[in-house]
Amino acid sequence: MKLYDTEHAPNPRRVRIFLAEKGITVPRQNVDLIGREHFSDDFAAINPFRQVPVLELDDGTRLTESAAICRYFEELHPEPPLFGTTPLERAQVEMWSRRIDFLLFTAIAQAFRHASRGMAVLENLQIAEWAEVNRDRALSFLRTLEGELHGEPFLVGGRFSMADISGLVALDFLRAARLQVPEELTRVRQWHAGLAARPSAVP
Amino acid sequence: MKLYDTEHAPNPRRVRIFLAEKGITVPRQNVDLIGREHFSDDFAAINPFRQVPVLELDDGTRLTESAAICRYFEELHPEPPLFGTTPLERAQVEMWSRRIDFLLFTAIAQAFRHASRGMAVLENLQIAEWAEVNRDRALSFLRTLEGELHGEPFLVGGRFSMADISGLVALDFLRAARLQVPEELTRVRQWHAGLAARPSAVP
Repeated sequence: MKLYDTEHAPNPRRVRIFLAEKGITVPRQNVDLIGREHFSDDFAAINPFRQVPVLELDDGTRLTESAAICRYFEELHPEPPLFGTTPLERAQVEMWSRRIDFLLFTAIAQAFRHASRGMAVLENLQIAEWAEVNRDRALSFLRTLEGELHGEPFLVGGRFSMADISGLVALDFLRAARLQVPEELTRVRQWHAGLAARPSAVP
Repeated sequence: MKLYDTEHAPNPRRVRIFLAEKGITVPRQNVDLIGREHFSDDFAAINPFRQVPVLELDDGTRLTESAAICRYFEELHPEPPLFGTTPLERAQVEMWSRRIDFLLFTAIAQAFRHASRGMAVLENLQIAEWAEVNRDRALSFLRTLEGELHGEPFLVGGRFSMADISGLVALDFLRAARLQVPEELTRVRQWHAGLAARPSAVP
């Protein structure tokens, strides 16, 4: 088993946090995103959609998408459970993961890709106004999230989960879009601080 | 239990297809998206993120995000399995669902929202060039997908799954962006035709 990974992107970090929480070690091979290795023909043979991470199994089967790789490890190593333990919790972990991934993370990524000169290789047409729209959307999400939190350390069922991992990675990604959690969103800040203090947050 | 639903949007259709495949009937309440009911204060109390569908349980708990609602029903009614039956299949269903949702569906949605006059209420700043970029991305995804299909009727494990539901709904959504599956992508067209012919595709 081998994990194609890279230090310089938020999505692969989700898998590293997940594995750290599970206590699982997987051999890693670095993909040089800055050197555009993922645009090489060699990498297209590994993942035709040209994204990192990729988990390669011993029989050569390859899994992409961070959440799918994490779900695979959850199935093989159920403890500690990170995708919920009851039907409702499992649905709530999926709900919060998707809310964060589609409504927050995507907005931050758009704001970053359309405003950062270094991202011009990925976004040939960088649209400053679109970056601004997405900065507003990210902040709007955080304000709504503030109303949904009630001082609990975790999003679902009183237990750390994949949804918190996505939340931590998204909030740490705000910097790339020159954003931060507004001071007045105290519950979001408190939730974030708790996640960032976990040993798994380091990688 | 009650499903807040709407006829006029692709995401809620995923839940309707899923329920039809499971043979489950759930009372539905229509949300009038065209009348902007989801922007009302009443609806914000139901889903602060203002999206449809929403599944309301008998104790008042509410689930949002189509995939999360489907996963809840999968947990309660495992047969027929629509999220995979082995660890690898479960990961592959997640992988294909996310590939379709993030890389294809999102591109189609952007192309639609930034080019359709009717969508100006949702995208105050409509950017024609951004619509064009996303039309290209949707087509690029379909070309890559063609290379990943090998004539099987379903994406994962020889069995109809949530990933196929997302694929069907995304392909049917192409029209909204004035796109279609190019003639030469015969395997994508064949896969699509098989899904569209299922009784569940009607709702």
